[in-house]
Amino acid sequence: MKNILEQQDLRKDGMRKEILEAVNHAFLENDPVLKVKSYIEKRSDILKSKRIKVIGFGKAAYEMYLGAQQALGNRIVNGGIIIPDDLVVDRKIINAEVFIGTHPFLSDKSIESTEKLISKISPLSREDTVLVLISGGGSSLFELLNDEITLDRYRKITKCMMDNGADIQELNAVRYLFSKVKGGKLKNFLCPARIISLIISDVPGDDIRFIASGPLSDPPDERLISKTVKKFGKKCSIDFNFEYKKDLKNCDAENNIIIRNEDFVLGISEYLKARGHRILNLGSGINGSVTNISRMIHRISEDYFRLIDRPYFFIGGGETSVKVRGNGIGGRNLEMCLRFIMNTKKKERFIFSSIGTDGIDGPSNAMGGIVDNYTLNILSKRKIREFLSNSESLTPLKMSKDVIITGRTGNNVSDIFVGYVEKI
Amino acid sequence: MKNILEQQDLRKDGMRKEILEAVNHAFLENDPVLKVKSYIEKRSDILKSKRIKVIGFGKAAYEMYLGAQQALGNRIVNGGIIIPDDLVVDRKIINAEVFIGTHPFLSDKSIESTEKLISKISPLSREDTVLVLISGGGSSLFELLNDEITLDRYRKITKCMMDNGADIQELNAVRYLFSKVKGGKLKNFLCPARIISLIISDVPGDDIRFIASGPLSDPPDERLISKTVKKFGKKCSIDFNFEYKKDLKNCDAENNIIIRNEDFVLGISEYLKARGHRILNLGSGINGSVTNISRMIHRISEDYFRLIDRPYFFIGGGETSVKVRGNGIGGRNLEMCLRFIMNTKKKERFIFSSIGTDGIDGPSNAMGGIVDNYTLNILSKRKIREFLSNSESLTPLKMSKDVIITGRTGNNVSDIFVGYVEKI
Repeated sequence: MKNILEQQDLRKDGMRKEILEAVNHAFLENDPVLKVKSYIEKRSDILKSKRIKVIGFGKAAYEMYLGAQQALGNRIVNGGIIIPDDLVVDRKIINAEVFIGTHPFLSDKSIESTEKLISKISPLSREDTVLVLISGGGSSLFELLNDEITLDRYRKITKCMMDNGADIQELNAVRYLFSKVKGGKLKNFLCPARIISLIISDVPGDDIRFIASGPLSDPPDERLISKTVKKFGKKCSIDFNFEYKKDLKNCDAENNIIIRNEDFVLGISEYLKARGHRILNLGSGINGSVTNISRMIHRISEDYFRLIDRPYFFIGGGETSVKVRGNGIGGRNLEMCLRFIMNTKKKERFIFSSIGTDGIDGPSNAMGGIVDNYTLNILSKRKIREFLSNSESLTPLKMSKDVIITGRTGNNVSDIFVGYVEKI
Repeated sequence: MKNILEQQDLRKDGMRKEILEAVNHAFLENDPVLKVKSYIEKRSDILKSKRIKVIGFGKAAYEMYLGAQQALGNRIVNGGIIIPDDLVVDRKIINAEVFIGTHPFLSDKSIESTEKLISKISPLSREDTVLVLISGGGSSLFELLNDEITLDRYRKITKCMMDNGADIQELNAVRYLFSKVKGGKLKNFLCPARIISLIISDVPGDDIRFIASGPLSDPPDERLISKTVKKFGKKCSIDFNFEYKKDLKNCDAENNIIIRNEDFVLGISEYLKARGHRILNLGSGINGSVTNISRMIHRISEDYFRLIDRPYFFIGGGETSVKVRGNGIGGRNLEMCLRFIMNTKKKERFIFSSIGTDGIDGPSNAMGGIVDNYTLNILSKRKIREFLSNSESLTPLKMSKDVIITGRTGNNVSDIFVGYVEKI
């Protein structure tokens, strides 16, 4: 990942620099290459395995594989990873092959790569250990569909569900029905090998059934599936009789989350604390609409200033959602920045930053933004309101030199919010 | 200290028990005996000292001395401590003498004990190491007045200042002028020995100039002294020409804070976190009137529930102040409990506890209280309002079995607030 502090067209004055340095530090501390490497090096049982095969998929698959490679070297017999097609990396890696998939929508490319990846490591015996490197984005990069459904119909159904307000759990439930690898079904292909996953969680609450649709987890809740099929069945033509565990072989997998949102929140908190700053840690798991979340965080940060009566930093993490209202460019993090600073009052002095840890905020090329009172002075609340009515957050924040651009980070633990309150 | 969980007339149902256990745990973890012992045992330079003399004063002096005794044994040549006259302890300790002083007001008893204590360890040479055990309450337990002032006049001046709204810093500034031991002047008596203090901080922000009026610290700010003398000079007859560092010899002292409010806040947070609970840490240094602080904390805790949408515990620490309005019995912590629960709305489900870590809340015999919706049901808001108009908080909280009684704890790091939010 590029060092944020080196970006030219980004203001880095005063406490903005402290925030950017803390964020940079958290990325270094939670680097997937190092985290995977050190995790494996501590596991003597993995190091001692006879035959190790490694597969991976998701936005962090490339970095995770490099970590595994550094720890295991030539003990990796073979393997492969599926990465997003827009990821610019050296596509030759040692002992394994790099395949390409699409994100956020499933395509023939992803399915083809999944087939190749699985056949690459087959056949597997009891002598084999399969390391599975899982990160967010895996849902659409890694998929094999049931014979009952075509890609075209699958797409229509999921699009229909999204248009009708399905949430991630409901989508996941239906994806499980149509898939040969989701909700634990990947185990069918890997048994009887020993299966160990290393996971980077991009999911609030870190429930592994929802990370890359849980290829090695338990299946989604049976009642959730029935309810979802009932709810969207007619509207989205899900005419499908399902048996809950029909395709599920009975074999074990060991799942290990090695990086999660909370690691970033704690990393940033500790960094700022060590530099003598006062901290309010709002924790991970902050979820909801950008409009609500930005308002709630602003209110809490106002009240906390009144409580302790001195400047401080606040840190939180989670995942917001944004209602797209026009054809402007920008994602939930950039919009979060604008909405937050809109909530502040004239005399208040705030800095606020919202970033997506994968480095790409929605359809923009930005990681996120960092705003303050200068942003308001440059743009004015009236203008920001106009931009927001068209979901345009990139253009205004570029004008105030508030856009953070890194490109894909090779990490993915959802979003991080950091703020500084100087005066209320 | 008595185990809170063993108190009969205290409700301990549901999450109230979690809070009480967490508080109990923090007291065990921050026990002054153990903390002093382990601190000294880690300092090989202290252990190697040729001749060690130990003096102490404050609400925790007895426990701190026991810790020093356990670490140093017969290496303590001699020493003594001054403790509050209401402290029930075994008054025979090994290698040192126990003196009695008064708290919170200075008396002849305190002055006499201070004279005896200092003469006990005199004379001192370069060969001596003096360990000074300092804790809150030391301001009135340990004092020698200047020849210019009588105890009677000293009392009149400080009472006049308090009645005219002087804060702790202003009181401290004037005390320094009248004292032979405050604001670093104790060093005059201990030089040329090596001087090392161990301090339990009861002061928000942990500025050692304000803990027991800083007998080994730097003096208060010179400008603060001038301003205070100007402000209260006429009204309170402080006709006193002062020279800032007149009585101050140039010798060194090493000051070490070994327990502070933040240790309790972190101890409670970590305990609850380890038991799988979600935490909002509001930090130490929460200061202000009970009315304001209870309202601010309630607002933040409401908003934070809305932000994360699930039950959680919050923890904070600091020191509140309360305006006495009648002749009822109760201190700032009991009143904080009542005011907090008064702020909650009908459907909200809260538990809230406020305690004084010394075990004695103002003029009551209670450490503090713990309230919830049941408290409101038993008492009604109307009745609580009546009680509060007479500053009576002990009686109503006894009715709802919400009073925590331990007696003096032998610790003293100001106040702790813990709450649980279940529903908003």
